[in-house]
Amino acid sequence: MSILKTETAKSASVRFARRMSNVRVSAVREILKVTERPEIISFAGGLPAPELFPVREIARAHAQVFDEDGPAALQYSTTEGWRPLREWIAARMRKRGIAADADRVLITTGSQQGIDLAGKVFLEPGDRIVVENPCYVAALQAFSAYEATPIPVDSDDDGMRMDQIEKALTRDPKLIYIVSEFSNPKGITLSAERRSRLIDLSLRYGVPILEDNPYGELRYAGVAPEPLAALDRNGLVIHIVTFSKTLSPGMRIGWLLASEEIFKEVVTAKQAADLHTSTVEQRAAARMLQEFDYDGHVAHLCLVYGERCKTMRDAIERHFPSETRWTKPDGGLFLWVELPKTVNADEVYAESLREQVAFVPGASFFAGEQRTNFMRLNFSNQTPERIEEGIKRIAGVLKRRMK
Amino acid sequence: MSILKTETAKSASVRFARRMSNVRVSAVREILKVTERPEIISFAGGLPAPELFPVREIARAHAQVFDEDGPAALQYSTTEGWRPLREWIAARMRKRGIAADADRVLITTGSQQGIDLAGKVFLEPGDRIVVENPCYVAALQAFSAYEATPIPVDSDDDGMRMDQIEKALTRDPKLIYIVSEFSNPKGITLSAERRSRLIDLSLRYGVPILEDNPYGELRYAGVAPEPLAALDRNGLVIHIVTFSKTLSPGMRIGWLLASEEIFKEVVTAKQAADLHTSTVEQRAAARMLQEFDYDGHVAHLCLVYGERCKTMRDAIERHFPSETRWTKPDGGLFLWVELPKTVNADEVYAESLREQVAFVPGASFFAGEQRTNFMRLNFSNQTPERIEEGIKRIAGVLKRRMK
Repeated sequence: MSILKTETAKSASVRFARRMSNVRVSAVREILKVTERPEIISFAGGLPAPELFPVREIARAHAQVFDEDGPAALQYSTTEGWRPLREWIAARMRKRGIAADADRVLITTGSQQGIDLAGKVFLEPGDRIVVENPCYVAALQAFSAYEATPIPVDSDDDGMRMDQIEKALTRDPKLIYIVSEFSNPKGITLSAERRSRLIDLSLRYGVPILEDNPYGELRYAGVAPEPLAALDRNGLVIHIVTFSKTLSPGMRIGWLLASEEIFKEVVTAKQAADLHTSTVEQRAAARMLQEFDYDGHVAHLCLVYGERCKTMRDAIERHFPSETRWTKPDGGLFLWVELPKTVNADEVYAESLREQVAFVPGASFFAGEQRTNFMRLNFSNQTPERIEEGIKRIAGVLKRRMK
Repeated sequence: MSILKTETAKSASVRFARRMSNVRVSAVREILKVTERPEIISFAGGLPAPELFPVREIARAHAQVFDEDGPAALQYSTTEGWRPLREWIAARMRKRGIAADADRVLITTGSQQGIDLAGKVFLEPGDRIVVENPCYVAALQAFSAYEATPIPVDSDDDGMRMDQIEKALTRDPKLIYIVSEFSNPKGITLSAERRSRLIDLSLRYGVPILEDNPYGELRYAGVAPEPLAALDRNGLVIHIVTFSKTLSPGMRIGWLLASEEIFKEVVTAKQAADLHTSTVEQRAAARMLQEFDYDGHVAHLCLVYGERCKTMRDAIERHFPSETRWTKPDGGLFLWVELPKTVNADEVYAESLREQVAFVPGASFFAGEQRTNFMRLNFSNQTPERIEEGIKRIAGVLKRRMK
C-alpha cells in the first residue's frame, strides 16, 4: 500500500444512499478473479470463447471507420444511436418476427445497461418485480439498486412456472424480468405455450415484460420459439439483446427495443446516464456488418459451442453420481446441476478448486432463500478435452462427498 | 410512419417510476438537433473541434491493440478498468498535486457516467444537493433521476458564492456538485481562496464534493489553481475527469477518483449499471498514450481554442450593445452573456436562427427559477472568421431588440 493511499484513506464518514446497502457485490465476478489462472479449468465465467472472436474483421472495420468517416467517428453523437446500426438491428429482429422499426431501437453499452435503464425507468423503492428463480445475478443487482423487491418464480424445464407467475401478478409488480432463451444460470427456454400465456397475463395485469435475450442466437438444437416481443401486440414487451455473445463483449454494444411510450423514457434515462454509446464502436459495428457474414459466423459459433455443450452433457451423464440432476440446454452458455440437499456446493467448489477446476456455486443466483445444493457450469470457454477432464475431477469430488 | 410502428404503438398504459417525471429532456440536445446544418454558425453545442481530433493516432492505437493483444482486447474485463490506463491517469493527476493512486481510479464511459454513479451512490428521494446556479444541465438531469432537490448557489467571477454555500450547507445536503474550472455554462473558475474555504466547509459539515473537471486541461491564460481533490485531506472530494475534450468525446472514456470507501460503492454501482467500460477503447487509449505527446497535443488545442476564445471576447466587446455583460473565461469552451432583464433570450435565439446563428438560451441551466435573459455561447467549434460573423449577426438582433 502506497503512502499516497494511506494519506487519503482516513475519509470522514459519509452517508450513502440507502439503495447501496441492498446491492450485493457479484459473487460471480469475485470468483472470476480467482479463476483467471490458465492452469484452472474454469467453468465459472460466462465468457464467450476468445479464439472465436472475429478479431481481424473487427480490426478492419475500425480501420475503415477512421479512414472513411474521419473525425465524425470521434465526435459526440445522439443518445438513440447510430442510424445505420439501428437499421441493421431492426432488420435482424424482424427476421425473428418482431415488429421492430429502427426508430424504437436504442443502442446501449451492452445488455446490462438495458436492464439498468429499464429498472431506472420503472422501479421505485418498495416496488415489486417478478423474476425467474434462480436468476441472472447482475439483473438482481441492478434492480436492488432501485430498491425493488423481487418476487421469485420457480422454473422447470419449460421455463417459469405459470401458476406461480399468475399468483405473483396479483401482488401488483411493476415489471416481469425474464431471460427467455437459454437462461442464465439454468440454460432453459420458456416454451411456446407458456409464451402465449405470459403475454396474455402481462396484458391482463398491465405489467410490462423485460425480455432479456443475450443467448438467443446460440441455438445448437431444436426450433426457436417466437420471442415474446414477436407475440406482443400491446407495447408491453421491452426486448434487450447484445453483441456480447456473438461479436465481442469487450466492445460493449447492445440494444433495447420498446414501444414508443417506453422508448422515450428509456432514452431520457440513457441521456442522463452516459449521453450516448461510443460513436467509434457503433460505427465500427455497423461498418463490419455491411460485409461480414454474421449468419455464417453465428453458425460457426453454434457448431463449436454445440460440441462443447454436448461434451459437457455427455461427460456429466457418464461421470456424475446418479443422485445428481442437471438441465439439458439446447443452446446458450450454461448448464445447471442440482446436487442432493445434503451436499453443499460451496464445499464442492472449494475442493474442486484444489483440483484446479472452478464453477459458480448456485446460491448467489437465488432471489429468495439461497439454496446451497446447486452449481452453474459454463461450457463455452473450454475445449472439449478440458471439459471432459474438468467434469471428471468434479465428479470425483462429488463421489467422495456423497459416499 | 411504417405499418409496423403503428401496429405496436397502441401500448397499454404503463406505470413509470415517479423519478422519470422529474427528469427534464435536455434542451441543449434538442437544440443541437436543429443546429447541425452546416450553413448554421452554431455556438450552441459543447463540441470540441473535430478538425483537432488526433484521428490518425487513435486509429493507429486501435490497430496496434487488435494486432498486439488480439482476442484479449475483445473479452469482458474488470469493472474498475484497464490497469495501464488507470496508472497513466493516476500519474497525470499526481502532476496536478492530487494524491491519486491507480487503485482508486475507476474508468467510466465519460464524465456523465461519473456524475450519474455518484448520484446513484449518494442521493435518495428528498435529498438535497448543492449546485452552482446556473449549472451543467445534464448533471441536473442525472440528479433529478434520483429525486434529489438542488439547492442553487449563485456564482460571480470567482465562482460559487461562499456566503450562499455556507447557508446551503446548514440545510443538510448530501453532496456539493461543482465544475471547478471553466464552468459550464459560465466559463468561470473557483478562486484559490474559495477552494480552501470550500474544503473547510465540506469537512465541517461532512458533505462530500463532487468535483467535475472536464475542461481543466484547456487553459488559455492565467495560472491553474489547485484542484479541490489536491486540497482534500479527508477523502471528501470525488474527482471526475474525461478525455472527451482532449482526445475524443466519441470514444467515451472518463474517470473517477475517490476515497477507498466511496470508490468501493461507486464500483458496485458501475457493475450494476454496465459491467465495465469498453475493453477495446480502454486499451486503445492506454496504447496511444504510451507514445502520444499528450502535453503537446493539449498545448495545440489551447493555442487554437485560445484564439477562438479571444476572437469571441473581442467581437462581443466590439459589437454587443453596452447594456450587455459577459464572462471573460481563461479557458474551457463557453462564455455566458447577460442581457438586460427586458430582453428574452428565447426570442433572441429564434431571431438569430433565422439569420443562421445558434446558441443556447440560458434558462435551462438554472436549477431554481429559470431566468430568461442569458445566453451560453460556445467558441470551440467555429473558426475565428465564423465567430466574428456570428457574433455580429447576434449583435444585430440584440440591437434591434434593445432599441
